[in-house]
Amino acid sequence: MKINAQRLSLHFREMSLIGKIGETGTCRPAHSGAEKQAFELAASWMHDAGMQTRIDNFGNLIGRLEGSKPKLPVLMLGSHLDSQPYGGRFDGVAGVLCAIEAITTLTENGMKPERSIEIVSFADEEGWRFNKGLFGSRGILGRLEEGELLRTDQDGVTREQALIDFGCDPSRFSESLYAPGSIYCFLELHIEQGPVLDRSDKPIGIVTGIAGPLWLIIKLKGMAGHTGSVPMHLRQDALLGAAEIITGLNKIVTQIAGAPTVGTVATIDVFPASRNIIAEEVVFTLDLRDIDLERRNAYEQQLKDLIAATAKKHQLAYQVSEDTNSAPRYCAPWIKAIIGEECAALGLDAPELMSGPFHDALALSYACDYGMIFIRCKDGISHNPLEYSSDEDLALGTEILYGTVLKVLNK
Amino acid sequence: MKINAQRLSLHFREMSLIGKIGETGTCRPAHSGAEKQAFELAASWMHDAGMQTRIDNFGNLIGRLEGSKPKLPVLMLGSHLDSQPYGGRFDGVAGVLCAIEAITTLTENGMKPERSIEIVSFADEEGWRFNKGLFGSRGILGRLEEGELLRTDQDGVTREQALIDFGCDPSRFSESLYAPGSIYCFLELHIEQGPVLDRSDKPIGIVTGIAGPLWLIIKLKGMAGHTGSVPMHLRQDALLGAAEIITGLNKIVTQIAGAPTVGTVATIDVFPASRNIIAEEVVFTLDLRDIDLERRNAYEQQLKDLIAATAKKHQLAYQVSEDTNSAPRYCAPWIKAIIGEECAALGLDAPELMSGPFHDALALSYACDYGMIFIRCKDGISHNPLEYSSDEDLALGTEILYGTVLKVLNK
Repeated sequence: MKINAQRLSLHFREMSLIGKIGETGTCRPAHSGAEKQAFELAASWMHDAGMQTRIDNFGNLIGRLEGSKPKLPVLMLGSHLDSQPYGGRFDGVAGVLCAIEAITTLTENGMKPERSIEIVSFADEEGWRFNKGLFGSRGILGRLEEGELLRTDQDGVTREQALIDFGCDPSRFSESLYAPGSIYCFLELHIEQGPVLDRSDKPIGIVTGIAGPLWLIIKLKGMAGHTGSVPMHLRQDALLGAAEIITGLNKIVTQIAGAPTVGTVATIDVFPASRNIIAEEVVFTLDLRDIDLERRNAYEQQLKDLIAATAKKHQLAYQVSEDTNSAPRYCAPWIKAIIGEECAALGLDAPELMSGPFHDALALSYACDYGMIFIRCKDGISHNPLEYSSDEDLALGTEILYGTVLKVLNK
Repeated sequence: MKINAQRLSLHFREMSLIGKIGETGTCRPAHSGAEKQAFELAASWMHDAGMQTRIDNFGNLIGRLEGSKPKLPVLMLGSHLDSQPYGGRFDGVAGVLCAIEAITTLTENGMKPERSIEIVSFADEEGWRFNKGLFGSRGILGRLEEGELLRTDQDGVTREQALIDFGCDPSRFSESLYAPGSIYCFLELHIEQGPVLDRSDKPIGIVTGIAGPLWLIIKLKGMAGHTGSVPMHLRQDALLGAAEIITGLNKIVTQIAGAPTVGTVATIDVFPASRNIIAEEVVFTLDLRDIDLERRNAYEQQLKDLIAATAKKHQLAYQVSEDTNSAPRYCAPWIKAIIGEECAALGLDAPELMSGPFHDALALSYACDYGMIFIRCKDGISHNPLEYSSDEDLALGTEILYGTVLKVLNK
């Protein structure tokens, strides 16, 4: 093996101490002190790889290995070091640490590429803090939306303030933009976060595309009242309405047995939240994904019909707002081919698979070709402190990433 | 009219300014600074009525008009001045202010009863702050349960600390107990909090009893995972389980059309509450009430079967704990008869009705006979800033309360 598996394993261990929760969990919110610490550690390793580092105004950490022809579009690698509030040690981290190991190996081997190489740890991939993800990767491409800086977290802190506190200057975003054509292609290694590889006993997968999510926020407004006295037939119970929509969503996404469609409600807030006041207002998030956009659109319509019917039944006012609506985005065939050759050279049978979760590569796909390598994770568990990928699988993925980088550079 | 309707109306207006939210709402949490202010205002009016006042170690405000035979069991009147977090101006307040007006009238008319009269504003009737109500009224009767002082509010403050902060001494509860037989009977005037009187166009109702609530806390534990990648059939989604229980509860309590059974889920908390992590743990409160205890027990069993089946279906661990389990408690026929005579004397056709909400009278029912007068409230709205009873109806109820007090004293 050309890469240094022992060093890689050590890096994972050191990184896991930052924002550690419980025995194996991580909580490193976007733009937080913990993420800053993670950036400093990753930057020190980037320096070891011969890279220069900076944090841009979107809160991205960028390491750059200057090529001999610095005007060529860059080869970009990366992922993210922010985590879910109750997350694991590998999601995002793998894409940054394995990229650093690959470029360190390249430097150690005395290679001086013509094309510059950049490794980016993108800001707020996860999206839970401000209910919208891929912030840094959309940011550098000028793809932020109206009002994003005014979004607040649970403590009422705006994105703008969080960026300023992180040391960024949101008034100077334009200086951190990547011009069209300035990125040659993007490579992201990531844990699968699903059970396909683990169940088929394969360490590595070749990603064919990313199923974009539809992210909605649904607000229902009924009428507060005493839980002991308002007869059932006179109620306008917003939480009962929400419960019917949650169970209805489950029926919608499971109507075709075996289809990969997923639909989830994972946050819900009730007002006034007193055990003996009928819920007057309920706000919940909804996440709908499918690799088949036509089917997803059909299900979205069924869902909207369900919301309208439920609101009418319980006399609720309602509002549906869209935070994110991404179409599926497919990987570049030529990069998939290179990854496939590298896997074959190591004697690996690497299956092709779609990604249900989104990744920074989804944002990059609008600016350049992209490819992704998936690493098996135990029982498909992710967004959970129990998330686990073995040192061996991560080293194998890094070896393939290294080989892919060399082939892309020589193309 | 014997009572002073103008003064009564003024008292409601003054009291509504304490803890005011919005135009017509009130937020006066139990054992809070706002409740203390309300106590001081009410105590000043009690002094005008010739009463002496004290705050006991449970946080109850007690005004006492000493009788000429102070060893006779007291005639007790009252209700509460704490409110829901998003409540109105009448719930509880009416029972304290109308009682003060009745006793003020008695004093102004130069009456010197043999029996002492006490008006109590009971601490934490509402129960939302520590998820358990009737604190003060159970307290004076020695009916607190194991561990009540250790319950915490949303900020982590224990009941014990809240009482100490309020100026009470929980180590001296015994000094605030009422000995068995020391209360002659209890009278409570309250707004109906339901639509029966308003719909039948009657200002006053005679309460026949209180439907005790069953209050449960239900905890479901599944498995966190990525909302984009865990296939639907492999999920252990605690929020989906909760939604099925909420919709199922609704079916259970509405299975007999027109029955007065009510069942409600009004608070729900999700962990980890990230829009793209499948809910691992959900905790929600459940409120089930019926005037028919046998039917309520049957529904409780159906509910528990539903919880077990839902948990099994989604592979969730679960836990059901009981905060409160009160049986229906009926009013004393002799007090109902007196109230009925007073209504008839004023030419009122006052219907008899059960109370869905509980009241401090429910706790007192275990120590003495009790009677309740209900005042019509607009559209049956309560536990809501829109709660409204007219000055005229409140004066009418106070007149009846005054007449009832005189008849009870002369009995």
